[in-house]
Amino acid sequence: MTPPDVLEAFVGLDGVVIDTSPLAVESARADKSGHRSNSAPLAVAYATTVEGVQELMRLATAHQIPVVTRGGGSGLAGGAIGQDGEIVLSLERMNQILEISVEDRLARVQAGVINSDLLAAAGEHGLWFAPDPASRQWSTVGGNIATNAGGLLCAKYGVTRESVLELSVVLADGRLITTGHRSVKGVTGFDLTGLFIGSEGLLGVIVEATVKLLPISPHPVWTLAARFGDIGGATTACQSITGAGHTPAIMELVDSISLHHIHNYLDLPTPPDAEVLLIAQADGSDANEQIAIFAGLCEVAGGSVVTSAEGPDADALLHLRRSMHPAMERLGQVLIEDVSVPRSQLGAMFEEIRKIERERAVLIPTVAHAADGNLHPNFIVDGDEVPDHIWDAADELFRRAIALGGTLTGEHGVGLLKRRWLVDELGDDQWQLQRDIKSLFDPQGILNPGKVFTH
Amino acid sequence: MTPPDVLEAFVGLDGVVIDTSPLAVESARADKSGHRSNSAPLAVAYATTVEGVQELMRLATAHQIPVVTRGGGSGLAGGAIGQDGEIVLSLERMNQILEISVEDRLARVQAGVINSDLLAAAGEHGLWFAPDPASRQWSTVGGNIATNAGGLLCAKYGVTRESVLELSVVLADGRLITTGHRSVKGVTGFDLTGLFIGSEGLLGVIVEATVKLLPISPHPVWTLAARFGDIGGATTACQSITGAGHTPAIMELVDSISLHHIHNYLDLPTPPDAEVLLIAQADGSDANEQIAIFAGLCEVAGGSVVTSAEGPDADALLHLRRSMHPAMERLGQVLIEDVSVPRSQLGAMFEEIRKIERERAVLIPTVAHAADGNLHPNFIVDGDEVPDHIWDAADELFRRAIALGGTLTGEHGVGLLKRRWLVDELGDDQWQLQRDIKSLFDPQGILNPGKVFTH
Ligand SMILES: Cc1cc2nc3c(=O)[nH]c(=O)nc-3n(C[C@H](O)[C@H](O)[C@H](O)COP(=O)(O)OP(=O)(O)OC[C@H]3O[C@@H](n4cnc5c(N)ncnc54)[C@H](O)[C@@H]3O)c2cc1C
Ligand SMILES: Cc1cc2nc3c(=O)[nH]c(=O)nc-3n(C[C@H](O)[C@H](O)[C@H](O)COP(=O)(O)OP(=O)(O)OC[C@H]3O[C@@H](n4cnc5c(N)ncnc54)[C@H](O)[C@@H]3O)c2cc1C
Repeated sequence: MTPPDVLEAFVGLDGVVIDTSPLAVESARADKSGHRSNSAPLAVAYATTVEGVQELMRLATAHQIPVVTRGGGSGLAGGAIGQDGEIVLSLERMNQILEISVEDRLARVQAGVINSDLLAAAGEHGLWFAPDPASRQWSTVGGNIATNAGGLLCAKYGVTRESVLELSVVLADGRLITTGHRSVKGVTGFDLTGLFIGSEGLLGVIVEATVKLLPISPHPVWTLAARFGDIGGATTACQSITGAGHTPAIMELVDSISLHHIHNYLDLPTPPDAEVLLIAQADGSDANEQIAIFAGLCEVAGGSVVTSAEGPDADALLHLRRSMHPAMERLGQVLIEDVSVPRSQLGAMFEEIRKIERERAVLIPTVAHAADGNLHPNFIVDGDEVPDHIWDAADELFRRAIALGGTLTGEHGVGLLKRRWLVDELGDDQWQLQRDIKSLFDPQGILNPGKVFTH
Repeated sequence: MTPPDVLEAFVGLDGVVIDTSPLAVESARADKSGHRSNSAPLAVAYATTVEGVQELMRLATAHQIPVVTRGGGSGLAGGAIGQDGEIVLSLERMNQILEISVEDRLARVQAGVINSDLLAAAGEHGLWFAPDPASRQWSTVGGNIATNAGGLLCAKYGVTRESVLELSVVLADGRLITTGHRSVKGVTGFDLTGLFIGSEGLLGVIVEATVKLLPISPHPVWTLAARFGDIGGATTACQSITGAGHTPAIMELVDSISLHHIHNYLDLPTPPDAEVLLIAQADGSDANEQIAIFAGLCEVAGGSVVTSAEGPDADALLHLRRSMHPAMERLGQVLIEDVSVPRSQLGAMFEEIRKIERERAVLIPTVAHAADGNLHPNFIVDGDEVPDHIWDAADELFRRAIALGGTLTGEHGVGLLKRRWLVDELGDDQWQLQRDIKSLFDPQGILNPGKVFTH
């Protein structure tokens, strides 16, 4: 059948709305990675029911039509991008919160629920949803699960994986399975729930999830800001805080180039040249004691410190960090990298980044989730495509992170943008094993083809 | 080749000591499940190096010899039991702690390290290893990982899965892969680390692991004991503690039959007939405030409460709980069951157990990790084999746990003893998918054949 004939079959499905409008298919060519596919997908299919997703996958299997699952489209790896011949399956209309249980501290949601909507709904019951990617307002719980998203709070509260109890997944051929369990614990068979978490749309379509919620703490959160004359002092402070066994709720490091642009963006006075900013938060019953300890360790490392309890001052500090992305976007097209290293290597990784800057004559403004060693080096690019010399610099970055015992992606995933480095980190044997798992779940290769694996 | 000829080839291997002595092969016929295989395995192979394990698996593949990986042999599901024609590969001599890093809060260990040895070594650095199965003194870190072991503290500190960063695994054909990373975060490719955790020796031989360590808290631990006139009051207290958003470090419930036998075993005065015991601990900077709240909730539910800070009184309370297993063993052969239900269903599950007792005319002394809904109903059996009527009662137990949203095994695994119920919980489609994953990792079916899957 020719593509239009094939689409005809999909149009008749219950529980799926097929949209071939230019607006829909054009917007499905991009996510937030800065990457754009060369051509528009056949259609965007908005699922409204689980059965609709099952029917769509059955048809897709019958006609061998590739399906790209999409949540909020906020991904930074090109994972939800569709192209010619593909159907982009959007979950965004499956946005019902099916249950919130206070007793079991959990929520059951459709995959398309926006993270911040779940957060708000949980809040009405005195609970909260821990995964807090900065894209909370646009990303879906399904997308968070499919990428195993992190966020500012994950050093203390874990990445998305730690919040998932149970998943309903439609397989490539349309069958529906439910993995995991509503109980806190369970070890029946292999951990397929864990396998679907971070699988970037390659193994199945996540349609529903049971996720853990946490009780909102009654204690005020304390915030600290420390400014350092150089990055070495700041990373020393971070490493002595975590090395002494403390776990800040949040610990964010903003390097000098980033700080400069953020100040600029917010119309604040230009900071001294090499100045870097560290923001830390502590929560729990001893939050202020913890912050006092952090402050002491920052001062020993040469930082000048202000601390404050919950309130406008603390909000203003976090607002600085949150302004990183818009400040970067004002400079051009942004490629946000995402390496992660062991905590003890935070300073070493910053040194490597500075070396790469000098060797490659490129600026790499970098922020870090300093409590867990996850760095986001930013590359500013002219025009739509990332030029080769930037990829070469990124390549250096990945190699050095891996050499330090780290990884090329701490939380954003592989998608389209990092698949050529996958084998460097996994090694040939593990790469092949992962490839074989993909084939087992999706023998025809119709689920998000070309993503994660180069072939 | 006949078995003796095959063994000849293994005897020559470097890094493996082959033991065919009756003592060795006889003890490898059993674990702590109470089950014993019908025949002795060919040999016990004590691995001493990673390369030795690789060579052994290469030979096993070449000769299609089944290999049963074994850690401490403390398993409760029959998973490490060998029989005729099989080699039992023991990791217990690979017991080196390779590294403890304070800065990165982790340890790198060979798989055969005993859990409590790692705990002691970490303690010298002010750190501790969270997974705390009651078998700490005999079980290995590799075995804890292969079963995803829980323990008293896991409601607050997570099961073994939450403590694993990186694994080195020898595959069925002898290849060595390393999954995960030393960094706290990482999402490169599918989560194979998670897939090996809880895989019960079916997917590969775990030879080394990098595990998280936690800082030892400087604050005293507070302990509470509450005695209730009936199980309903006690489960109400537990559910109101967790339902109000509290997370005790430990919360253990001992039902009246269990309490009776424990008192007996410890030569304590016989408790009133229906009396049940709840023991809870709180840690952290506000431990005593937490315990005061728990005490209030226990009293509201009809409990009479004593509380104490760290010290002999608290130790004596936990000693009561820890005496459960020896108290049961004095009564006969013990089958320890392991169902888990959502927290809100703790009371309902106890009611189901009491119903099964009446319907089947069998006593089921039960203790529970009450903070996470994991119950250990015990069956006392005469002789070596579990009789059919006991399995029938266990069968009822599993079905009712699953019907309440739970699982047939919270922490012990499937092994030999629960494989016939696996499909009931997973459903046919997921069972088949899991079976196919097994075949992918182990096409010849030489890794722990007959365990977890019935065929
Ligand atoms: C400003 C900004 C800040 C960000 N901050 C963070 C951060 O702090 N931490 C972080 O981890 N990420 C961050 N991200 C990246 C992104 O938001 C996350 O990866 C998010 O989890 C993606 O969710 P989504 O619903 O938008 O998924 P999409 O972008 O739509 O999809 C992402 C991937 O998941 C797959 N997928 C989506 N839904 C499903 C489903 N239901 N079933 C199967 N597969 C599915 C897609 O195929 C694709 O491969 C940020 C992005 C932006 C733009
Ligand atoms: C008194 C007592 C109390 C217990 N309390 C608890 C408890 O509180 N929580 C709990 O979860 N369990 C408990 N258990 C059960 C048991 O101790 C755990 O399952 C433990 O994790 C098993 O570790 P092991 O080294 O003894 O493994 P083994 O019994 O030797 O093996 C268990 C399984 O793991 C596999 N395996 C072992 N090592 C490896 C490896 N290196 N690579 C691949 N596969 C491997 C085996 O093939 C087998 O399937 C208890 C047992 C007893 C006897």
